[in-house]
Amino acid sequence: MSILTRPILEINLNNLLDNYRTLHQMSEKSIAAAVVKDDAYGLNAVEVAKKLYTEAKCRHFFVAHGIEGERIRPAVPDADIYVLQGIGEDSLESFQKCRLIPVISSPDQLEFWKQNRIKGIRPIINIETGLNRLGFREHDLEQLSSEDKKEFSFVMSHLACGDAKEHFMNEHQLTTFNRLKEKFFPHLPASLSASDGTFLGSDFQKDMVRLGAAMYGINTAPYRENQMKNVVTVKAPVLQTAALPKGEFVGYSATYRANSNRKIAIVSIGYGDGIPRSLSNIGKLFFNVCGKLHEARILGRLSMDNIICDVTEIDNLRVGDMAYVIFDDYTLDDMGRDAGTISYEILSRIGKNTRYIRTYK
Amino acid sequence: MSILTRPILEINLNNLLDNYRTLHQMSEKSIAAAVVKDDAYGLNAVEVAKKLYTEAKCRHFFVAHGIEGERIRPAVPDADIYVLQGIGEDSLESFQKCRLIPVISSPDQLEFWKQNRIKGIRPIINIETGLNRLGFREHDLEQLSSEDKKEFSFVMSHLACGDAKEHFMNEHQLTTFNRLKEKFFPHLPASLSASDGTFLGSDFQKDMVRLGAAMYGINTAPYRENQMKNVVTVKAPVLQTAALPKGEFVGYSATYRANSNRKIAIVSIGYGDGIPRSLSNIGKLFFNVCGKLHEARILGRLSMDNIICDVTEIDNLRVGDMAYVIFDDYTLDDMGRDAGTISYEILSRIGKNTRYIRTYK
Repeated sequence: MSILTRPILEINLNNLLDNYRTLHQMSEKSIAAAVVKDDAYGLNAVEVAKKLYTEAKCRHFFVAHGIEGERIRPAVPDADIYVLQGIGEDSLESFQKCRLIPVISSPDQLEFWKQNRIKGIRPIINIETGLNRLGFREHDLEQLSSEDKKEFSFVMSHLACGDAKEHFMNEHQLTTFNRLKEKFFPHLPASLSASDGTFLGSDFQKDMVRLGAAMYGINTAPYRENQMKNVVTVKAPVLQTAALPKGEFVGYSATYRANSNRKIAIVSIGYGDGIPRSLSNIGKLFFNVCGKLHEARILGRLSMDNIICDVTEIDNLRVGDMAYVIFDDYTLDDMGRDAGTISYEILSRIGKNTRYIRTYK
Repeated sequence: MSILTRPILEINLNNLLDNYRTLHQMSEKSIAAAVVKDDAYGLNAVEVAKKLYTEAKCRHFFVAHGIEGERIRPAVPDADIYVLQGIGEDSLESFQKCRLIPVISSPDQLEFWKQNRIKGIRPIINIETGLNRLGFREHDLEQLSSEDKKEFSFVMSHLACGDAKEHFMNEHQLTTFNRLKEKFFPHLPASLSASDGTFLGSDFQKDMVRLGAAMYGINTAPYRENQMKNVVTVKAPVLQTAALPKGEFVGYSATYRANSNRKIAIVSIGYGDGIPRSLSNIGKLFFNVCGKLHEARILGRLSMDNIICDVTEIDNLRVGDMAYVIFDDYTLDDMGRDAGTISYEILSRIGKNTRYIRTYK
C-alpha cells in the first residue's frame, strides 16, 4: 500500500506528433499549421511547439493572442506565428518584438495595421462565410482598395459545422469561400479548414490546414471511429475507502442516497483540477485491479478536491491505488459526452491546474 | 475607438480583506482561518495569503495539497498551514521543508504520519459526520489508542448542506460531531464549519472557522442577500460588430438562427478563458454605453476565444468597448446559476487562464 495524495497528468507528445503526421498525410498538398492557442489547449504551448518544430519541422503556428505568440517565439525561432484575434494596442509590442503575423478580420483592424505596419510581415485576411464570427463581410471586402489587398499573404475562413460531414453549412461555406476568394483575392493562397475540415477532403484543405483539436487526440470527425492517438492521461490516488451504510447520503447537498450497503472510495481529484462538476452522479472512474479494468460510478457531487465513487463490486482495491480519470479507454471525448459538453472544453481546463504531478513523454 | 484584443481580470484584494473581516466579526470567538486551496480558488494563493497575513494578521491557512502549502510558505513565514488532503509519499518533502500540518483523515494516514512524524507538528484529525467523504468513521475512532489521540491538536469535520439553513443534515452533523468529539477528544479544540457553516450561528462556529468561498465574494448563505463584497471583475473588448441578416446562423453547429435582422458583437473571451461553454444561447454580457448598463444575450455556442452577443438594441456601441462578463451587477453567483453550476466552479476556472491582463487592487 502507498500513501499518495496528488493527481497525475501525463501528456504523450509522441502521440501528439503521430497525430500531426497522420493529419499532414491526409492533406499532403497543404501546409500543416499547428494550432497552439490557449496554451496548446492547456497542454503547454512551449512544449508542444518545440516538439513539432524540432521533430516534424513544423514552421507554421497559430495562436489566439499576441501574448501567446510571444511565449512560444523562443521555441520556434524562425517559424511563422499567426495571431487569430488580430493585433491591437494591448498586443502591438508582442507583435513587434516577436515578428508575429496578425490575422486581420475587420476594416478597423486593417486600419490599425496600416498605422502600425511591421516591415516584412504580411497579415492573413479572415473572411466571413457563415459562422458569423470574426471576419470581413462581403460589403467590407468591396471597400478594399487594390493597395489594401496587397497587404495580405493568405486568405482564410473557418467552418461552423465541419464535424458533421453531411451538414449543409459545409457546402454553403465552401461555395461562399471559393466565390469570395475568386472575386477579391484570386492570386492569394487560401486556408479554410481546422482539424474537422481536414477530414472533409481535398476541396476543403486548400493551401494550409490549421491542425488543433485532432492533434490533441480529439475526434473531430465523430461520424467515424477516432483515428487519433490519445494524448492525455489523468490519474488520481485513492485516499480512503469506507463502508457507506444503507440510507446514508454522499457529498454536498446530499444528492446521492444509498439504497443498499455500498463501499466507496474517495479519490484525490476534483473540479479544482479541471474535472467538470457536471459529472456529479453521472460520470465514472476506472480501476485496474489484478489486471482487470473496473468501472466505478461517481456518487454525489464532485467537490473541489475529491471525487467519491462506488467500488462495491471491486475486490482488493487498496488505498494508494490509482483511479484512471482520462485515458485510452475513457478519452476526453467520452468525458465530454458524459459531462454534457465537448472534449475541447475539458481539454482546455485540465492542463491549467497546478496540483498535478505532470510528465511529458 | 480603441483596438484591443485581450480580456481583463481584476481581483479586488481590499474587498476580499473586508469580506474576511466581516466573517471574522460574525464568529469573533473563533480563530478565522483562511482557505487558500486550489491556488486561492484560482486567484493566486500567494497574493491572497500575503494580503491576509500582513493586513489582517491571519495566522491560520488551509490548503488542499502539500505543494500548495510549499508555495505559500514564503508569504506567511510563521503561520500554521493545514493540508486537507493529508500527507503522503508524494508530499512528505513539502511537509518537512515547510513545516506543514497534515489533516489526518484515516487510520492509514495516521500510520504513515507515525512513521514520518515532524518534530513539533501536531496534526488535525478529521472525523466523518455525514458528508461521507474523507474522515475517520466511528469504528476507526474506537481503534485509536490513548497515545494516538495525543498526536492531535484539533478535531474537525465538514458540513454537507451548510448553505441550506433548514436542512436536516446540519442538525444531524452538529449532533454527531458534538457526540464524537465528547467521546473521543473531549479536551481538543474543534472546527466544524467552512464559510457556509459560519452563517449558521455560534453552535457551528466552534474554535476555528475555515473561511473560503464567502471571502472570495460567493454567497454561501443563499437563503439571504449576499453580504459579501464582489472580488472578481472580468471584462473583454469588442473585436468587431456586424449585421446578422435574418435567416443566418451563429457559431459552431449553427445552434442560433436569426428570425429577424440583428446586430452582433464579437467579444474577445471564451471558454479558453474559463467562461463556461454551458452559457451558450443562455448567458449574457453587459455593456456600459453612455452611462447606461445594457444587457446583451449570448448567441450560439461559446467558442474557445470568442463570444458572440446580440447588441441590436444598443446604440453607439463601438469596437474596443468593454463587455462586462463578471462584475458587481452580474456576479460569480449569477453566472453559476445561468451556467447550471455553482459559482465555486466558475471561480476555480477563471483565474488559471493566462491570457488575461491581470490586476490586483
